Amino acid sequence: MNAPAPFLNLEIDSRPAPAALLQALSERFGAQYSAALVVREQHGRDESAFSVPPPAAVVFAETTQDVSDAVKLAAQYKVPVIPFGVGSSLEGHLLAVQGGISIDVSRMNAVLAINAEDLTVTAQAGVTRKQLNEAAKSTGLFFPVDPGADATLGGMAATRASGTNAVRYGTMRENVLALEVVTAQGEVIRTGTRAKKSSAGYDLTRLMVGSEGTLGIITEVTVKLYPLPEAVMAATCSFNSLAAAVNTTIQVIQMGVPIARCELLDANTIRMVNKHSNLSLREGAMLLMEFHGSPASVQEQVDTVQAIASDIGGQTFEWASTPEARTKLWTARHNAYFAGIQSRPGCKAITTDTCVPISRLADALLDSVTEAQASGLTYFLVGHVGDGNFHMGYLIDPDSASERATAEQLNSQLVQRALKLGGTCTGEHGVGLHKMEFLVQEAGSGAIAMMRAIKQALDPDNLMNPGKIFARQASSS
Amino acid sequence: MNAPAPFLNLEIDSRPAPAALLQALSERFGAQYSAALVVREQHGRDESAFSVPPPAAVVFAETTQDVSDAVKLAAQYKVPVIPFGVGSSLEGHLLAVQGGISIDVSRMNAVLAINAEDLTVTAQAGVTRKQLNEAAKSTGLFFPVDPGADATLGGMAATRASGTNAVRYGTMRENVLALEVVTAQGEVIRTGTRAKKSSAGYDLTRLMVGSEGTLGIITEVTVKLYPLPEAVMAATCSFNSLAAAVNTTIQVIQMGVPIARCELLDANTIRMVNKHSNLSLREGAMLLMEFHGSPASVQEQVDTVQAIASDIGGQTFEWASTPEARTKLWTARHNAYFAGIQSRPGCKAITTDTCVPISRLADALLDSVTEAQASGLTYFLVGHVGDGNFHMGYLIDPDSASERATAEQLNSQLVQRALKLGGTCTGEHGVGLHKMEFLVQEAGSGAIAMMRAIKQALDPDNLMNPGKIFARQASSS
Repeated sequence: MNAPAPFLNLEIDSRPAPAALLQALSERFGAQYSAALVVREQHGRDESAFSVPPPAAVVFAETTQDVSDAVKLAAQYKVPVIPFGVGSSLEGHLLAVQGGISIDVSRMNAVLAINAEDLTVTAQAGVTRKQLNEAAKSTGLFFPVDPGADATLGGMAATRASGTNAVRYGTMRENVLALEVVTAQGEVIRTGTRAKKSSAGYDLTRLMVGSEGTLGIITEVTVKLYPLPEAVMAATCSFNSLAAAVNTTIQVIQMGVPIARCELLDANTIRMVNKHSNLSLREGAMLLMEFHGSPASVQEQVDTVQAIASDIGGQTFEWASTPEARTKLWTARHNAYFAGIQSRPGCKAITTDTCVPISRLADALLDSVTEAQASGLTYFLVGHVGDGNFHMGYLIDPDSASERATAEQLNSQLVQRALKLGGTCTGEHGVGLHKMEFLVQEAGSGAIAMMRAIKQALDPDNLMNPGKIFARQASSS
Repeated sequence: MNAPAPFLNLEIDSRPAPAALLQALSERFGAQYSAALVVREQHGRDESAFSVPPPAAVVFAETTQDVSDAVKLAAQYKVPVIPFGVGSSLEGHLLAVQGGISIDVSRMNAVLAINAEDLTVTAQAGVTRKQLNEAAKSTGLFFPVDPGADATLGGMAATRASGTNAVRYGTMRENVLALEVVTAQGEVIRTGTRAKKSSAGYDLTRLMVGSEGTLGIITEVTVKLYPLPEAVMAATCSFNSLAAAVNTTIQVIQMGVPIARCELLDANTIRMVNKHSNLSLREGAMLLMEFHGSPASVQEQVDTVQAIASDIGGQTFEWASTPEARTKLWTARHNAYFAGIQSRPGCKAITTDTCVPISRLADALLDSVTEAQASGLTYFLVGHVGDGNFHMGYLIDPDSASERATAEQLNSQLVQRALKLGGTCTGEHGVGLHKMEFLVQEAGSGAIAMMRAIKQALDPDNLMNPGKIFARQASSS
């Protein structure tokens, strides 16, 4: 296959910001403003494998009004703005490919209202998922969406993030009820309400969720909370082959078992995780699972899944029976990305993110693993397989053009395969800089034209995180 | 309160369609075209209380190409197009307030692909929910979204419909995976994939869901299916007061009981339903409930809910223990609207549709009932109360200006109350002609401006079901 390798086409046009704008920002924001190189560089990199010049300056917003003022000032000078949370994007979302001002919302970290009686919480965009759960703890409720990093709610909404619990509790798409957003014009709007459902006009909430900062800057997020389950059981199950682990997953989902987590790691990744997190998980294809519900319901789920697994050659479940053991297991899973990175000092990961209909998961995953093995590249493999979503991380020497090209080629083949199987190029990481060509293939030119028309209508000067989602030249759509 | 009564401001501008367009449509569509008055009138009314001149002609589309061609021809003459399914809208969505051509998609009624192994089905927009479930029956799967009428999937998607099962299974927002849509330019686009989750660009699927035909015509819908539950139990529970029934509901939801249906009827409505469906339900405030799951899980749910209800004065559950009894119960519930209408021959219903955060349900509902009782109007009261959503149907003599005004005043007071409680003016029926002013109050001028910008970008000549969602004059936003 000769699909394009998007990285190689990355267009960078880091126009300098006018001195008058920097002056105006400095005057308006004082100590909340910085043009120091170290600060700019910190806001000019993320977990992607791209290297791009940093933004011209950073504004540390503390209020929605700060965000609005920064957007309005930048707009006066036709300078781009890029929202920044904790910098955990895997797809280059934060990078100033067309220059601009980074608007850091991490100081907007107040949990504004926990409405326990409605199972909702409203928080500023800079609140991270762990902080939110800490704040909700005493209410007996929790927020399930858990990408690997301790990302901000704003960033998670902007990339339509999910994580290990999505198989039962859904993604940010299903869990965001309402938003406050600063538009390209610097206006503050609210989308949605705390009501569980609504047919009131266009679904601006879900238009903003996944828009990657290109239609506005999310400043406040209202999400659903869930009662902490009465019973929780977590188990690992080893298999003799990846295929057996994948096929177990497929059957579990097809039977409608309401499993709360169903994660796949391959032997190689288990080895990396064991080393990184000081664990001794059995080195083979493994499902990490968690079951939520009443004690009886959890036992039913466990019995069903163990029976399916045993039929396909799975071992007896090993239990993480205490809360501490469960925390250790899931922390290790969340750190798998970093375990992979650290297994090869100095490397960068090029991470895939396809998601396919569950029945096609084996087809999508197994051939991609075979190709990766044949390539000779080191990689890790983790998957939210209950959702049909998995990640391969190709660990490359960032200075090696040939390793990078090999990784991009593998990624491209994997994406083409997923698209043919009715899937998507990105299950949860977003398009960013890295999947713009894939998005065109997936959505088709008509849908891309509609997305561009919306972008043009809401951000006519193309100042909201430009260069993401869409390739710069309209011709590439 | 002196809130506006939107009906009284209804703007009708039924421009005639150019003879040349009608000629061109007749030539292109032959027997699939009709300008007969009886056909036009059938396509010019719905379940709303509005009376508007019928569309200029009707095209019976049989393929997506038909829809595309009709849209393109109408666009040439700058004539509006209005999609039509089975005509079950409650909010005037189908009415030709600015003239135009009705595009009837009811003949596009093929179930295209049941992917049982992925729990998805793809069907043409004219397939109704009952037809879909009939087609899926042999697979052991079902589609849960069930508005009162046997509506089409296209119409249900366009209004973001829900129904009695939404409390457990979600609404069309959560259940539509992908769409085929004919744009205002007559282009055919696809949104979404069959993958369970995706972060690939703007969520055009959810932008179209709930757009009420104003951004494009939905021609094909891919939705989620669910395994038929192993065990199903349905029960009714009578209460001495509406407040007790509502407070039971609130506690059930707050405890996280995964109840599948939780419907409220008041004594008066039970009387109407008993008469219409030949039942003998006890005439008092009543919850109609259904529980899905494994036998053990269902028993747990039942025990929990019965205990909560008993604490607040609920009677012992009465069981609909056979599938036939359950079907009879839920058919009666679905027909409550018609039972109400038939209780007063010749009447029309003005139906409310607010939805509030669950903790505010008693506040929203009980005062509205008190006001309705004081007004002297006949009304029915049904509610998807597990979602915080309920409907009052004020049964008016359509020729009585004073009854209409009273009903609109009650509706307005009810909506103002819901908005103050953090709710929405429409949980599932859509905005249509009837809630445009309420939408402005709910969403705010900034969000309305964003919706209008999207509408303008995608439909610059305002030909896709114009006059719905937004009042005609931009000044009214």
